[in-house]
Amino acid sequence: MSRVIRFHEIGEPEVLKIEDVEVPDPKAGEIRIETKALGLNRAEVMFRTGTYVSDPVFPALNGYEASGVVEKLGPGVEGFAIGDKVSVVPCFTLGEFGLHGELVNAPAFGVVKHPENLSWEEAAATWMMFVTAYGALVDIADVKAGDVVLIRAASSSVGLAAIQIANMLGAVPVALTRGGAKRDALIAAGAKHVIATEEQDLVAEVATITGGKGARVAFDPVGGPEVAKILDSLSTFGIFFQYGALDVRDVPVSVMALLGKMLTIRGYQLHEVTQNPERLEKAKAFVVEGLASGALKPAIARSFRFDDIVEAYRFMESNQQVGKIVVTM
Amino acid sequence: MSRVIRFHEIGEPEVLKIEDVEVPDPKAGEIRIETKALGLNRAEVMFRTGTYVSDPVFPALNGYEASGVVEKLGPGVEGFAIGDKVSVVPCFTLGEFGLHGELVNAPAFGVVKHPENLSWEEAAATWMMFVTAYGALVDIADVKAGDVVLIRAASSSVGLAAIQIANMLGAVPVALTRGGAKRDALIAAGAKHVIATEEQDLVAEVATITGGKGARVAFDPVGGPEVAKILDSLSTFGIFFQYGALDVRDVPVSVMALLGKMLTIRGYQLHEVTQNPERLEKAKAFVVEGLASGALKPAIARSFRFDDIVEAYRFMESNQQVGKIVVTM
Repeated sequence: MSRVIRFHEIGEPEVLKIEDVEVPDPKAGEIRIETKALGLNRAEVMFRTGTYVSDPVFPALNGYEASGVVEKLGPGVEGFAIGDKVSVVPCFTLGEFGLHGELVNAPAFGVVKHPENLSWEEAAATWMMFVTAYGALVDIADVKAGDVVLIRAASSSVGLAAIQIANMLGAVPVALTRGGAKRDALIAAGAKHVIATEEQDLVAEVATITGGKGARVAFDPVGGPEVAKILDSLSTFGIFFQYGALDVRDVPVSVMALLGKMLTIRGYQLHEVTQNPERLEKAKAFVVEGLASGALKPAIARSFRFDDIVEAYRFMESNQQVGKIVVTM
Repeated sequence: MSRVIRFHEIGEPEVLKIEDVEVPDPKAGEIRIETKALGLNRAEVMFRTGTYVSDPVFPALNGYEASGVVEKLGPGVEGFAIGDKVSVVPCFTLGEFGLHGELVNAPAFGVVKHPENLSWEEAAATWMMFVTAYGALVDIADVKAGDVVLIRAASSSVGLAAIQIANMLGAVPVALTRGGAKRDALIAAGAKHVIATEEQDLVAEVATITGGKGARVAFDPVGGPEVAKILDSLSTFGIFFQYGALDVRDVPVSVMALLGKMLTIRGYQLHEVTQNPERLEKAKAFVVEGLASGALKPAIARSFRFDDIVEAYRFMESNQQVGKIVVTM
């Protein structure tokens, strides 16, 4: 029997229960992992509250991110041995797998032997944040040295990953944050400029930074009417990525921005990269190289004990953190 | 002295005057052409009415499309001889050149020796319509056999070109038209399906045609609030092109469409293709191949005499035509 997080109804963090269950043997193409650390993210909150792309079937597992030790290999799995130190790239839809437990099964093609210089917490925190940002900035937009990249909700773990990746490529990360409270933390995290969108004129600030040219890329998990100003801040052939829906209102797109500048507006989910084996391998290689060189370093906001999982999600939903919330086993 | 169309003020078609002027010698990289036929398009109307991306400097030339005979070569121009039968790919901004006259200069890199099987009228009509549709459908979206392509304002010359190109690629062109009046003409022009958007439920019709999957590409010169339904008709990873702004109102983009289906929304102008020498050469080769095989055939709505240029534009602005309006010299 292992202790695993499950929930039996839609609801607040309190519906998450730690239960003793018999974890099944890994199936073909799966690896069973004895976890050492877990990462938390908002897709899990959406799944738990019934607003995710798939609905939970109860009792439901949850969890996209974990690191640990290979405990058992499913039929046909090659390239791994019992005892390997691994972590998991999110390459499945919640409901198919759930990684929040002491013993969990994961699809082998998403499992990575991460660099030795990472702690368990960092390894658990790595993949969602870096692969999400990599997929948009590198795989799709092909960001180059000198490109200006606008990063909204920049203090989120994915936002911080985008800052690091932009710096790794020699690009110019510009952090967008609502108020000025996180300005110093964002500069410390590598942002070349910080624009507090409730206090400053976004379009004017970006024009100043880019000499009137506009930013080539914007990376946004929010959406909604505020996007109009971001589109007005982009350059000719600029690309706007929406990768989350924290604001579910329509985005109003002006013809002058779209047609006049030949913009691209792109809905993006990391599954586009992680469910394509070839693109996933390139993503892993990029992130492993960045982690090994130190150019990329998972930003951990706070660590909780497994027994305090409810408190960990409450903290996340309070929006105070800068970086990733993790759980140690 | 040659007879050339010029205008001295912003306004209705009546501001266009046929005037006797001394046409200068072609500069380096230019070819002077004795025209045989001209094509008309809406960018010229926007230029004449002061709503184009650049403002006219008076007296202003106008005109994007012409066919004729090479009359004189500018310094450094190679690959052409006096007397060559040519036509011109729109590869400039109005204000830089204007092709509506008996004798006109054009940038040599946009000049093409078109296939012998084209009449002068067809040659003049070819490039704007086919290269505009090619750039979006082939160069950017890489349309493949079986892809369903929604074509709005399908009875325009570019719309008809998109129908022909989709058929040439083995894709499925679906013509969108407001009422049912042009249905038979669009089927005759090659549309596999016609949806009258003011009379039928676009989303339901596309779902039926695609077996619930949605269309992979939409190609739209209009824009505005109606685009929401087109986005709802697209498949996962669908691409929406806006290549004109007949409706200048904002496009409302829903999060569920954009993010849920990982859509791309793309502002597109053919200059993106025609001002890039490598992409322009591929475009010319594709169109020449299609014209030579008969897969592509310029659709001519009606032909006017040069002296009736004002009447020709009035007809265009009446929106009754199916295909390209041309002028013979």
